[in-house]
Amino acid sequence: MTKALPNIAVLGATGVVGREILKILDENNVQYNSIKFLASKRSAGSTLEFKGQKYTVIETTPEAFDDVNICLASAGGETSKKYAPIAASKGCVFIDNSSAFRMDEDVPLVIAGVNDEDLRKHHGIIANPNCSTSQLMLPLKALDDKYKVKRMIVSTYQAVSGAGLKAINELTDNTKTNLVGMPYEPSAFKYEIAFNVIPQIDVFCENGYTKEEMKVTNETRKILHFDENVKISCTAVRVPVYIGHSEAVSVEFENDVDVNEARELLKNTDGVEVRDDVSTYTYPTPKDAAGKNPVYVGRMRKSIAFDKGLDFFCVADNLRIGAALNTVRIAQKVIEMELY
Amino acid sequence: MTKALPNIAVLGATGVVGREILKILDENNVQYNSIKFLASKRSAGSTLEFKGQKYTVIETTPEAFDDVNICLASAGGETSKKYAPIAASKGCVFIDNSSAFRMDEDVPLVIAGVNDEDLRKHHGIIANPNCSTSQLMLPLKALDDKYKVKRMIVSTYQAVSGAGLKAINELTDNTKTNLVGMPYEPSAFKYEIAFNVIPQIDVFCENGYTKEEMKVTNETRKILHFDENVKISCTAVRVPVYIGHSEAVSVEFENDVDVNEARELLKNTDGVEVRDDVSTYTYPTPKDAAGKNPVYVGRMRKSIAFDKGLDFFCVADNLRIGAALNTVRIAQKVIEMELY
Repeated sequence: MTKALPNIAVLGATGVVGREILKILDENNVQYNSIKFLASKRSAGSTLEFKGQKYTVIETTPEAFDDVNICLASAGGETSKKYAPIAASKGCVFIDNSSAFRMDEDVPLVIAGVNDEDLRKHHGIIANPNCSTSQLMLPLKALDDKYKVKRMIVSTYQAVSGAGLKAINELTDNTKTNLVGMPYEPSAFKYEIAFNVIPQIDVFCENGYTKEEMKVTNETRKILHFDENVKISCTAVRVPVYIGHSEAVSVEFENDVDVNEARELLKNTDGVEVRDDVSTYTYPTPKDAAGKNPVYVGRMRKSIAFDKGLDFFCVADNLRIGAALNTVRIAQKVIEMELY
Repeated sequence: MTKALPNIAVLGATGVVGREILKILDENNVQYNSIKFLASKRSAGSTLEFKGQKYTVIETTPEAFDDVNICLASAGGETSKKYAPIAASKGCVFIDNSSAFRMDEDVPLVIAGVNDEDLRKHHGIIANPNCSTSQLMLPLKALDDKYKVKRMIVSTYQAVSGAGLKAINELTDNTKTNLVGMPYEPSAFKYEIAFNVIPQIDVFCENGYTKEEMKVTNETRKILHFDENVKISCTAVRVPVYIGHSEAVSVEFENDVDVNEARELLKNTDGVEVRDDVSTYTYPTPKDAAGKNPVYVGRMRKSIAFDKGLDFFCVADNLRIGAALNTVRIAQKVIEMELY
């Protein structure tokens, strides 16, 4: 390491993902020269504790990015659209959690440990994939390297924390209201989420899929450099879980798959933890994954729908691998590869 | 109708599905000569109300089936294994909700309105398919008639009521315990079901799929007379919902599919209700389906994973179409076709 340590900014520091970013910056002991915390005008002026020190949250303005080398941003698409180009023009590497730039050809879309080399092509903005895509990439990359993915069908079981603080509180309020037999009028969701599942996340596209579902198709292709011949479809469903996205995944491969070999492969994949022993009812659930870093894989079995295929169940903390953890890991790679 | 009205028995009348059978016998105004209610020794002697009249629950014994023409049974596999052959030998048509006889070659496996003609082949026992299979059959039969099913991948979101009264109470207790931040030791489920999802229903088979998952494969093939070339796989997941199973379904067909045509087709299919208008956020959820008879279909879209395929989301009251409603409908067909 020859380069001076970076000045870091965390944008959206007071949100659900922002708080998680602070935790992980601490856990991973990320080294920096200086750090500051940016938020909307509303949250500016409030105090925030990081590594035992108190910081005043600063309002996000163009000037706030002066002298910042790396910004970890999770403040929503509108804020990113406004400030990412400004930050980049000032020489700051803007690592963005929103969907604003993900499919931009000039913006690398990166899962640390999967396609780190794409980071070298950045022009100031780096995008973090959507949570439902992110957790799949580590196991899928390992399987693709060995068996070559041809087709994938994903059904998700997504936690409410993916929709922010208001949605988390709504699950609690709605549940309590239901338990005493009172009616409840949802507002964070279109339908009641308590004791229910909702087959819509994000808005609908013209082809009938939701944006969330198309993100799995398009972001997976971009991250793993798949061409259009690799067919991917998804059904994204919200479930009454606080933290932890789950995915039922069916993959067809070009090559024959041996399930025991595939299991060993994933056991040796960084960031993946295999929990898969039917004799002891061992498989991942979101409650067990919450607060943890690995992507958990279980229920691995040779597909009976595809001649060369595999079915598995993939669970991860959506606020970590799906957002904050990967953002911090990208920052660490940018520092390590001296790309700031 | 020339035949005398049947003497009916309801076996397992005090269970979750049994109670629902009573409701639907009343709603559908099923005609009979006499009716009686059978249960285990433990429940025998208790009183039960049906159509405003009080009945004493009778202990299930071989003699209890004397003079019974049609028995609607939902008392679990062991009870069915014991009493179905006895009942049949006494000339009773035993309509069974358990999985005990479903794959028996001599036993028709029937969804009323889908394969009624199979009823004619009965030898005293008729099986009701598993709940996760049942709700799919009405829409799938219509789609298969038109487009010919080639491959199907199903991910389920199954309500706890499918696991009985104890599981229903456990969801409530576990949820309340979680809301006050106390630990909970599950017993009806292997893992906590509150604010969680569990990717296991029923026991594991040698191929890594669960019995519940293999039921979808095998029962669908039997009901729709598919040969082994039709490939079907399923991932069955328990979710914290009281009533209403949901299924994310991806189907590949032999023939080209037009999604608008397919939607019209299902709109005109008896027992199916299409709730599918993305412009008004109209799609089915289990909470809306609970207590109702139709199989609801929404989120219909041309597959982007298969050249000739369709994705959709299918929701139904698992205690009704998945169990009690189909049992009663089979009884009605047996009466109508004079097969008792």
